Amino acid sequence: MNQLPSSPNGATLGKVYLVGGGPGAEDLITVRGYKLLLKADAVVTDGIGAVELFEDLPITTEIYDVSGLTQDTTVAQKDINNLLIELARSGKQVVRLKVGDPNIFGGGGEEAFACESAGVDFEVVPGVTSAVAAPAAAGIPLTHRGIANGFTVVTGDEEIASVGGDTDHTLVILMGIERLRETSFTLAAGLRGADCPVAIIESGFAQNQKIVVGTLANIWQVAQDAGIKSPAVIVVGDVVRLSPHYLAELQAQFFKPERS
Amino acid sequence: MNQLPSSPNGATLGKVYLVGGGPGAEDLITVRGYKLLLKADAVVTDGIGAVELFEDLPITTEIYDVSGLTQDTTVAQKDINNLLIELARSGKQVVRLKVGDPNIFGGGGEEAFACESAGVDFEVVPGVTSAVAAPAAAGIPLTHRGIANGFTVVTGDEEIASVGGDTDHTLVILMGIERLRETSFTLAAGLRGADCPVAIIESGFAQNQKIVVGTLANIWQVAQDAGIKSPAVIVVGDVVRLSPHYLAELQAQFFKPERS
Repeated sequence: MNQLPSSPNGATLGKVYLVGGGPGAEDLITVRGYKLLLKADAVVTDGIGAVELFEDLPITTEIYDVSGLTQDTTVAQKDINNLLIELARSGKQVVRLKVGDPNIFGGGGEEAFACESAGVDFEVVPGVTSAVAAPAAAGIPLTHRGIANGFTVVTGDEEIASVGGDTDHTLVILMGIERLRETSFTLAAGLRGADCPVAIIESGFAQNQKIVVGTLANIWQVAQDAGIKSPAVIVVGDVVRLSPHYLAELQAQFFKPERS
Repeated sequence: MNQLPSSPNGATLGKVYLVGGGPGAEDLITVRGYKLLLKADAVVTDGIGAVELFEDLPITTEIYDVSGLTQDTTVAQKDINNLLIELARSGKQVVRLKVGDPNIFGGGGEEAFACESAGVDFEVVPGVTSAVAAPAAAGIPLTHRGIANGFTVVTGDEEIASVGGDTDHTLVILMGIERLRETSFTLAAGLRGADCPVAIIESGFAQNQKIVVGTLANIWQVAQDAGIKSPAVIVVGDVVRLSPHYLAELQAQFFKPERS
């Protein structure tokens, strides 16, 4: 290991790496993130995502699982910030492992700002966000020539009604399963209309991956029937038609025996 | 190497991996993508992005640089599709290396569809898109609690006027440098207003990285003065204020000696 930089008073200086761990599969972390993880003195994790990665770590690596912190996210975030700062100040090379990308609904900005304010050196290592990877797992590109020229990513908390665009602008909703019924209704009443195709991907790229497809009119019922649970990624727009899952569903509908 | 699967008539079956190479730094590819690259029989590249990766390849790897193909993207895309299919049909494991993520303005969907139609086995390996990584290189998170709850990614070709949201909805524009003057004007005339902060990141996470900041009112002039060139990522919205580059610019403006 290289010699660590020292402060003017001789103390070893630590550093915090805010690392995107990717969407969940252990090999969808970046090479840079993986290398930093292997040589970290301490790893701070939320206990979700690619936890298999920890099996590769040396036995000396300190692992801090902060998933047990209080549900009050504001309080929890302060505790996590303080832990990161304390570890770095004790001279450790710290990897703060995030699911997806640190800067997309990950609180990465808050932890970066806390380090900055405390005078602690930090670096952001971007990751593959599930907003992009989960649709890919279902065979859905977020943009596609002639079908979609752009995309928007929001959470279920976002004012969905204010999101612009038609079915040719892909909408990705994270953390939106709880509000799926209201969201579908709002979107169906807008420019997209009730027939707009929707896909939901639970645990994209993980072993227990589950994919359902439908339209804004029926997706809530379809998701209910399939027992879809958070965290899941919702994709709304014409690009969903490109998914083999959507095609299979269309065929199933077409060949379904009439009941009367 | 494991034995390759065979077709019914005994021919070895190839496969196409559509791999996101990340934003440009060689170690921001995923571990999965890197491993596939190392054991590929053939690699098809656009000659941009993390080309240093090719130095790690065995001397036996066939490398096809398709950047020299005609500027007519429709024709070029067909030629690339045909090359991928031909290589896979000759029994090769093919990595189609893309900058960023294959499914974000990368034509990944078109290549996947071409493979599907030709009956060639394929798999998408997502990557870190520069739409996320380039802002991170400038210290800008795309979302931040209390500042931005969502983001939209479009190209300069997109009808910018139809993009929803205010300064609290982050807007990322790819391939937008040529139309920067018109785009800034359109956006300034909308909800965001002329004072809305903007950052432009050229070659984020690369050695020749260049970052400029300003507002919708002056960013075109600032980018001109700094000689910003494509490809670059434009970020518009309140999150830009979190960048140390923005703070430094504010301070520089504040302490600038009066001239009259």
